[in-house]
Amino acid sequence: MQLPSTLLENAVAEFSKLPGIGKKTALRLVLHLLKQEKGITTQFGETLQKMRNEIQFCETCYNISDGKICSICTNTGRQKDTICVVENIRDVIAIENTQQFHGTYHVLGGIISPLDGIGPEQLTIEALVKRVRDNKVSELVFALNPTIQGDTTIYYIQKKLSNYSCNITTIARGIAFGGELEYADEMTLGKSISNRQPIHQYIK
Amino acid sequence: MQLPSTLLENAVAEFSKLPGIGKKTALRLVLHLLKQEKGITTQFGETLQKMRNEIQFCETCYNISDGKICSICTNTGRQKDTICVVENIRDVIAIENTQQFHGTYHVLGGIISPLDGIGPEQLTIEALVKRVRDNKVSELVFALNPTIQGDTTIYYIQKKLSNYSCNITTIARGIAFGGELEYADEMTLGKSISNRQPIHQYIK
Repeated sequence: MQLPSTLLENAVAEFSKLPGIGKKTALRLVLHLLKQEKGITTQFGETLQKMRNEIQFCETCYNISDGKICSICTNTGRQKDTICVVENIRDVIAIENTQQFHGTYHVLGGIISPLDGIGPEQLTIEALVKRVRDNKVSELVFALNPTIQGDTTIYYIQKKLSNYSCNITTIARGIAFGGELEYADEMTLGKSISNRQPIHQYIK
Repeated sequence: MQLPSTLLENAVAEFSKLPGIGKKTALRLVLHLLKQEKGITTQFGETLQKMRNEIQFCETCYNISDGKICSICTNTGRQKDTICVVENIRDVIAIENTQQFHGTYHVLGGIISPLDGIGPEQLTIEALVKRVRDNKVSELVFALNPTIQGDTTIYYIQKKLSNYSCNITTIARGIAFGGELEYADEMTLGKSISNRQPIHQYIK
């Protein structure tokens, strides 16, 4: 696609670098910005740069934060003795949106995956062990994706924590709401039967 | 969706203002930028701001341009006596990509649409009439979308130019390549029959 201006071409190239945005979509977005006031583009650019330069990662849980410690870790209403271990920040946002978890988080920054060259030392596992050692942590809830890498990560961390007396749990696997039994894979359906729950726990 | 940081929230809000980008996509894009070096975001923001602030519209044809006159109007290899009239810049890009048109363009900036409050005075029709009057223009090719508004615009401009001896044509309507006769609308199929072409013109 030949564009009539180098400035336009550069802007389109920048947008195309973003994931899931092709050249045609990029052009549509740039032409949209061109139709707006100049101030709109200035604000857009400056907000992104400010975000990138000023955002921090919480020193306790490695969640995204405006300051040194994130809003969840500083919130006195959260149970500090329950830590939910997740892979990335998007998982924190997803769990927060359920409003069902009242503890704190620990963001690993990935999962152990030797094929991708990610070992335990690239993740925040040391910091997690230190957190469990130095604080009174009664429960560690693993909320990792149910893959071999996820299970390996759980196993590795569990080994590291074998000397500490904290409970280790994982989120429940089972049939999703709206899911059809008929189409569920055998592994999920099998787990959902072997981990069946008393009905009073289900409807509470 | 609750986000853990105001900086993040502002950046997501800015992305969500773009057409076709919802809050989830915006979050994905912002988290992508967060994973990259800081310089990437700075370059992204600055390129967009530079584009918006420095881009100009060609004084002759109203196409996007890096300078006062666009690269098509300054190109001596283009036929200056043939002007293709289009609605917007995206149409110029589309026609340029066919590499079938060797004249110059005139971007109207819209089409006459009283229901949307767009009259002839909001468009660059005066400038087009002036261009035809002051230059030796032998042909005006209308490449507008085949709608009532498009036809109205053609009719209006044609009336304005009735005193000048330039040919007025429109791009051909007919069955698209890869289109099926069976599913074509009657109007298009009818036009494609009444405007049938000698076969030597078709395969040239």
